[in-house]
Amino acid sequence: MKNYRLESDLLGELQIPEQAYYGVQTQRAIDNFKISKTKLSDYPVFIKALAYVKLAAARTNYELGVLEENIFKAIQFACHELLEGKYRDQFPIDMIQGGAGTSVNMNANEVIANIALEYMGYQKGDYQYCSPNDHVNLSQSTNDAYPTAIKLAFLKMNQELVKRVERLVTAFRTKGDEFSGILKMGRTQLQDAVPMSLGQEFEAFAVNMQEEVTRLNSNADLFLEINMGATAIGTGLNSIPGYTPLCTQHLADVSGYPFTPAPNLIEATPDTGSYVIYSSSLKRLAVKLSKICNDLRLLSSGPRAGFNEINLPAMQPGSSIMPGKVNPVIPEVVNQVCFKVIGNDLTVTFAAEAGQLQLNVMEPVLGLSIIESITFLQNAIDTLVEKCIQGITANEDVCKNMIMNSIGIVTALNPYIGYKKSTKIAKEALETGKGIYQLVLEHQLLSQEKLDEILNPENMLNPTIHH
Amino acid sequence: MKNYRLESDLLGELQIPEQAYYGVQTQRAIDNFKISKTKLSDYPVFIKALAYVKLAAARTNYELGVLEENIFKAIQFACHELLEGKYRDQFPIDMIQGGAGTSVNMNANEVIANIALEYMGYQKGDYQYCSPNDHVNLSQSTNDAYPTAIKLAFLKMNQELVKRVERLVTAFRTKGDEFSGILKMGRTQLQDAVPMSLGQEFEAFAVNMQEEVTRLNSNADLFLEINMGATAIGTGLNSIPGYTPLCTQHLADVSGYPFTPAPNLIEATPDTGSYVIYSSSLKRLAVKLSKICNDLRLLSSGPRAGFNEINLPAMQPGSSIMPGKVNPVIPEVVNQVCFKVIGNDLTVTFAAEAGQLQLNVMEPVLGLSIIESITFLQNAIDTLVEKCIQGITANEDVCKNMIMNSIGIVTALNPYIGYKKSTKIAKEALETGKGIYQLVLEHQLLSQEKLDEILNPENMLNPTIHH
Amino acid sequence: MKNYRLESDLLGELQIPEQAYYGVQTQRAIDNFKISKTKLSDYPVFIKALAYVKLAAARTNYELGVLEENIFKAIQFACHELLEGKYRDQFPIDMIQGGAGTSVNMNANEVIANIALEYMGYQKGDYQYCSPNDHVNLSQSTNDAYPTAIKLAFLKMNQELVKRVERLVTAFRTKGDEFSGILKMGRTQLQDAVPMSLGQEFEAFAVNMQEEVTRLNSNADLFLEINMGATAIGTGLNSIPGYTPLCTQHLADVSGYPFTPAPNLIEATPDTGSYVIYSSSLKRLAVKLSKICNDLRLLSSGPRAGFNEINLPAMQPGSSIMPGKVNPVIPEVVNQVCFKVIGNDLTVTFAAEAGQLQLNVMEPVLGLSIIESITFLQNAIDTLVEKCIQGITANEDVCKNMIMNSIGIVTALNPYIGYKKSTKIAKEALETGKGIYQLVLEHQLLSQEKLDEILNPENMLNPTIHH
Amino acid sequence: MKNYRLESDLLGELQIPEQAYYGVQTQRAIDNFKISKTKLSDYPVFIKALAYVKLAAARTNYELGVLEENIFKAIQFACHELLEGKYRDQFPIDMIQGGAGTSVNMNANEVIANIALEYMGYQKGDYQYCSPNDHVNLSQSTNDAYPTAIKLAFLKMNQELVKRVERLVTAFRTKGDEFSGILKMGRTQLQDAVPMSLGQEFEAFAVNMQEEVTRLNSNADLFLEINMGATAIGTGLNSIPGYTPLCTQHLADVSGYPFTPAPNLIEATPDTGSYVIYSSSLKRLAVKLSKICNDLRLLSSGPRAGFNEINLPAMQPGSSIMPGKVNPVIPEVVNQVCFKVIGNDLTVTFAAEAGQLQLNVMEPVLGLSIIESITFLQNAIDTLVEKCIQGITANEDVCKNMIMNSIGIVTALNPYIGYKKSTKIAKEALETGKGIYQLVLEHQLLSQEKLDEILNPENMLNPTIHH
Repeated sequence: MKNYRLESDLLGELQIPEQAYYGVQTQRAIDNFKISKTKLSDYPVFIKALAYVKLAAARTNYELGVLEENIFKAIQFACHELLEGKYRDQFPIDMIQGGAGTSVNMNANEVIANIALEYMGYQKGDYQYCSPNDHVNLSQSTNDAYPTAIKLAFLKMNQELVKRVERLVTAFRTKGDEFSGILKMGRTQLQDAVPMSLGQEFEAFAVNMQEEVTRLNSNADLFLEINMGATAIGTGLNSIPGYTPLCTQHLADVSGYPFTPAPNLIEATPDTGSYVIYSSSLKRLAVKLSKICNDLRLLSSGPRAGFNEINLPAMQPGSSIMPGKVNPVIPEVVNQVCFKVIGNDLTVTFAAEAGQLQLNVMEPVLGLSIIESITFLQNAIDTLVEKCIQGITANEDVCKNMIMNSIGIVTALNPYIGYKKSTKIAKEALETGKGIYQLVLEHQLLSQEKLDEILNPENMLNPTIHH
Repeated sequence: MKNYRLESDLLGELQIPEQAYYGVQTQRAIDNFKISKTKLSDYPVFIKALAYVKLAAARTNYELGVLEENIFKAIQFACHELLEGKYRDQFPIDMIQGGAGTSVNMNANEVIANIALEYMGYQKGDYQYCSPNDHVNLSQSTNDAYPTAIKLAFLKMNQELVKRVERLVTAFRTKGDEFSGILKMGRTQLQDAVPMSLGQEFEAFAVNMQEEVTRLNSNADLFLEINMGATAIGTGLNSIPGYTPLCTQHLADVSGYPFTPAPNLIEATPDTGSYVIYSSSLKRLAVKLSKICNDLRLLSSGPRAGFNEINLPAMQPGSSIMPGKVNPVIPEVVNQVCFKVIGNDLTVTFAAEAGQLQLNVMEPVLGLSIIESITFLQNAIDTLVEKCIQGITANEDVCKNMIMNSIGIVTALNPYIGYKKSTKIAKEALETGKGIYQLVLEHQLLSQEKLDEILNPENMLNPTIHH
Repeated sequence: MKNYRLESDLLGELQIPEQAYYGVQTQRAIDNFKISKTKLSDYPVFIKALAYVKLAAARTNYELGVLEENIFKAIQFACHELLEGKYRDQFPIDMIQGGAGTSVNMNANEVIANIALEYMGYQKGDYQYCSPNDHVNLSQSTNDAYPTAIKLAFLKMNQELVKRVERLVTAFRTKGDEFSGILKMGRTQLQDAVPMSLGQEFEAFAVNMQEEVTRLNSNADLFLEINMGATAIGTGLNSIPGYTPLCTQHLADVSGYPFTPAPNLIEATPDTGSYVIYSSSLKRLAVKLSKICNDLRLLSSGPRAGFNEINLPAMQPGSSIMPGKVNPVIPEVVNQVCFKVIGNDLTVTFAAEAGQLQLNVMEPVLGLSIIESITFLQNAIDTLVEKCIQGITANEDVCKNMIMNSIGIVTALNPYIGYKKSTKIAKEALETGKGIYQLVLEHQLLSQEKLDEILNPENMLNPTIHH
Repeated sequence: MKNYRLESDLLGELQIPEQAYYGVQTQRAIDNFKISKTKLSDYPVFIKALAYVKLAAARTNYELGVLEENIFKAIQFACHELLEGKYRDQFPIDMIQGGAGTSVNMNANEVIANIALEYMGYQKGDYQYCSPNDHVNLSQSTNDAYPTAIKLAFLKMNQELVKRVERLVTAFRTKGDEFSGILKMGRTQLQDAVPMSLGQEFEAFAVNMQEEVTRLNSNADLFLEINMGATAIGTGLNSIPGYTPLCTQHLADVSGYPFTPAPNLIEATPDTGSYVIYSSSLKRLAVKLSKICNDLRLLSSGPRAGFNEINLPAMQPGSSIMPGKVNPVIPEVVNQVCFKVIGNDLTVTFAAEAGQLQLNVMEPVLGLSIIESITFLQNAIDTLVEKCIQGITANEDVCKNMIMNSIGIVTALNPYIGYKKSTKIAKEALETGKGIYQLVLEHQLLSQEKLDEILNPENMLNPTIHH
């Protein structure tokens, strides 16, 4: 008893496991691309995006009269099955693949065709009744269906990422409020500058990350422009009059995203500009997040031979040899994710530049790199919020003592005694180890009363200079 | 007779050339930073931006009552001198410098102070009457004045760049119109795909570049948010109540750009997010431009052993050894500029990630990298338009013959005979060297009349399938 | 009945699954780092490298008298178990982790300790008899054991990669021999240059890749310098006199790689220079491999509207819409792998630059990026050899016709009629469409006999100019 | 009276300034490439390298009988003039140019020809007596002469760079000796680890940089393999039998570098592998140098609210607003140079990957990027040595106090009381603020005598554990 069926294509016949819903072209891709361990099945969001695209195309074909109702119903059924998360294991192909995504598109076409065939009462492989190419892929090409599905997946993933960033904003803001009364020295160029509150520092992190919400969403919006109806190269060959606007509308309806057709389908088809700039906005998030994690590690350095202004929650023993050592492992892992995202952005850059003439064949690695970056960032931010930021505590005394000792507060004297005299006082303080306060009085530059008013740290945070 | 004056600062006295309008801190920067050959004086747009910032600050200080009228008038005069392009040689410091831009800011403060002093009838160096720090830099810090000036310069430079991109769009569009009647094979994955017109290919370049205008402007708009009044770290120490909004408004008035104050000055001061994403948009332009230049080089490859669809204007003999060889030197130089821009973007990424706590000290290299990228792109695009695109001609016969010989036109048969039969015909054509047309008739798959209608290349560009 | 045991560390008690060989610190890492799907267990080569390191350390400790014989034997047994590939599922931690590899090191320490405990007849968790820290990790720190294990793993992986590159060299060389008689036009700047043989082109690919064998091995040799005995920061605290040389020798003996101790352990401990340059050599391989794949795609472009000099074996139907289209999917996937490798190299660069003071805490992402690059390259090269190069065929007639039509052969006339006259002939050929041969005769510049001799393409490949 | 002469090439006639030694092709390059401000004349080392190459070629041609003695003598004279640094202003072309270096090669050919013509008593432009193409460029092509000259220039520049790195090693080593008696806390992950000496820290910097000397030289050695005699594509068309080895030998003789011919000239001609890996070694230097500068900035952070272990020499006032502030401006500028080098390495990567078939046309930007990186690094290292490292002083008391306060010294107790008990002591110290010493005695874990011996910081630097 055979446990396979025979399917054929341009290259000849091939055995397909009997129970498989995928077909000959998926099988070829399985055989051809054994590169990474990352499979299409690892990203359900991408499979669902393909299902949405195929559903919208089928509905359009049906309404425009080029697809029979019973086949449409069967394809619709199959797409809904995929949207419910079924048949995920039928997408076993490597995410890194040649062919500009043809294997992904055909994987979807084949699985949908075979589910549809069974729904109609046929056997898997009876493609005369519902063909992956002639029916499921009708009016489409990989070159429009595939990037459209990627864009839909990215829009969905971006929403999830943005939720995480917003969570991060809230976590920083909460700490900002909690630490609002703790005064500390601000630092520029790692040198003591002027006073601020620890709360201001964390609130600034919140504001800094809030901006990323806007950036991510604004750049993700570029994914709303799609090229359904372009077919092979954007000339729309084999597409039907009216197909592009109707299919775009159907996709918007079923997916919930307000897609619009690209004004010029020939331009849109090989163009990867939206990927490039969205990946750049992921990079921007990574750069800023990495800077913040660097700050958290600096501020918690010590405990005795560092800044020691804050304590990160201890998550694990820090050393296999140094007892009692606790390390900032959570910011550290976030830094590393950020470096991965920056590396992925370079991969995207190379892949985008490698487009040629009417197509960019490097879209698979481009897509995978962005998907990986979003996923890593989501996980990293969740980790940062839950296992680090929410548990941060402040060393109020340490913070306060640094202000008292600091030379930087001399800056507040500028408006009263000028930059030049202030410089002399600062220099003397540095050389003698004396405090600014003491020196100003010694040199009789200001009355003690006035000096107390000026050097009150709280006043330094709310400038109210009057002469 | 001495030909220098003595000035002093925190570190002691220093000789300054008598005729110099800059002072001691500029002199230290000249001595400290001997890295590149690129000087502040190479970028008049940056000097003017500094002058605008200093002018706006002085006006605000005057109106808020902390700067005397006569000093304000003198500073105003000095700023206008700089705005007229005078004293450019007084900015001799290296664009790559430590100190987070302090040297640039002090260079401007010193030159303005000395011009102002002379205007008021004093000698250069008589800083008690107009001091670089106490008057010109009043209510400011390097950390607000310097990034604000950079942003103003970038806004101005972006406008110039956008003009170039628009010029490029026009050049491509003109060729698109000129070549609209020339049919050729489209290619995906460097393999023959389906027909298109050469005009469509060039129009797609135009549309592709047109998008960059939007992207550049949209990202440059982030530079409109500035942090005047932040002073050292954003707490506004030594700034005056009301200073931030008024100074921002004055800068908007004098410069013509609708600046707004950052909502959180502590966040805004170390943040380099706007540089990162604007540099990303330069990178995106570079990636797309490089792809287009690659296409131009492919399309003009030959003349005998290549695609040979178009001719680029001959700009110089192509070889020191091969007589008569003409190379696509203009697209080649543009490709190289694009690689420089991509490299600069990485420098920006590193510099941005290196920000620490209340400041990003790497702003000078970050600024220089963006300035270099914009400048190179401006020059490259001008060169591309004038010395290449405007002179491109088409080899109509070559284009036409490729369609006639092609197998790709079989795609148009899909809707009539199905993907599977079309595949067989294509395979037979490839193996026998016969044409698609001939084979369809031989196999009696369609009537000659129908076939003529379907395979008419013009029809392929305007899909009108009817069953 | 409980199915867990309690273990404790600095942070308190934690439940460990009863059957688990890992312990409390591994469990904390499992809980802390949920970033990627890549686990330590995905890389048996890395687990084995850890086992070698732990074995060498235990043997050294035993011989130097700080580890009792029975515990040493038990640890030795445990390491051998790991070397045989057992207990792989006991390494479930994420490859992207904070803590500078402490979790990886402790995972190994804990698994080895518990295997050893059972071997000695104790229960898992009875750490007083064999402790992860006091016995398995004796005389070590994460900061020496972990990078040493990484380096050992890289040396092993590099050997595997080099085998693949050598296979690639052979494949290209074989084709070089096969195509040695096929003459074609060489191209510079995508423009027709002078004749060569197709065999020379493939032999050049072979030579080009052969160089990478040398480069990879030469850079991998830097991994032979290790820092065992450095302990926490290179001062060797808690290490025993004589430990470093003996442990290094033992590791060399058991692993087969001629390791040597770093001359300065304080320098060696935070240094990631060997990773940086080895990753660079992977990047170099990727850059060159990508260039070759670009060439293969160019040479096989067509079949009718491209260069069409060679045919890549058809691996799958190329299009969901264009019947009969066959795409160069294998070179395409290799290009994409190359872009991933280049991106990973940037991640390595960032991670390396982020080292601080006595340690580089980013080693995990640095290690993972290199491991991923090597693995992808191995798979990609295997794929390229088997599914592409071995099946390449040449279109001899196409190649030949391009020479006959070419203008580039005029170059061969330089030594006889000079560059200037040759240029005129070339120009006339281009303008009139006439052949070089005909024009030289028309202008009576050389006798037909002499011309035949010069323009014989075979002669052009073996320069033998005589005046 | 005309002040120009007419020259002509493939494209027609052009006016050349009468006094110019360059000719028509240089003039075209001047007109075509207006991209950057960086000219060939900015790099005398490159002009000299071209002169060496042309001299070696001329000598070879003369000895092989294809160049007449009088012309050879004249060319030889011209090359010597260039080697003496004359005529530098005759190389006014942009370093960023299309054409794969043809303009550079022709610039050299033309200047040499015209100097030679005058030497022979002819007028500039009388090319029938000594032609840029037929005589100066005899047996050469841009594609062999140009990369050979680049490689020669890189070898020379590398020597200069290595001298700087050695100077840096000496500077660090001197400080290492000076600080050898100053004990301090080592830090891993920015957390207090175990003691070390400040001298060890600086000696480690020295060792770290010493490695770069080896790396740079070892990678620069790849430039010793050249392709003279390859002519256009490596087939040696128009070259003479015996030319390659003789010319290579002559170049070695005149330049002093032991050049060898590439084993396969067809492979060598388009290959840019040596540039890629040498640029990588520049990147490695940059990455390590940036890490060291980050460390210097961390160690000197403060003065009151930072680590404050060392003082960098004050080079300039640090702030326009904060009196007395001194910033680490020299390490900061070095960091920025490092970021530029890393960015340039990416440009090199892109340019290398863009090679196609028998040539890499992107060599100009590739060359410029490396030249810029070397130059910047040379200047940055000189600056770092002179204006920073040599003047560093230590704060011995600060360093010492950090050890006394530290918890990390508990690590030294591991071998005596075990990791678990040590952990408890560390935890108690952290919670109570008590010292390790006091707690060990309180808990009666060790005798005071033993404890004194173990916790003696000097002992911690020279491990001598005995049980």
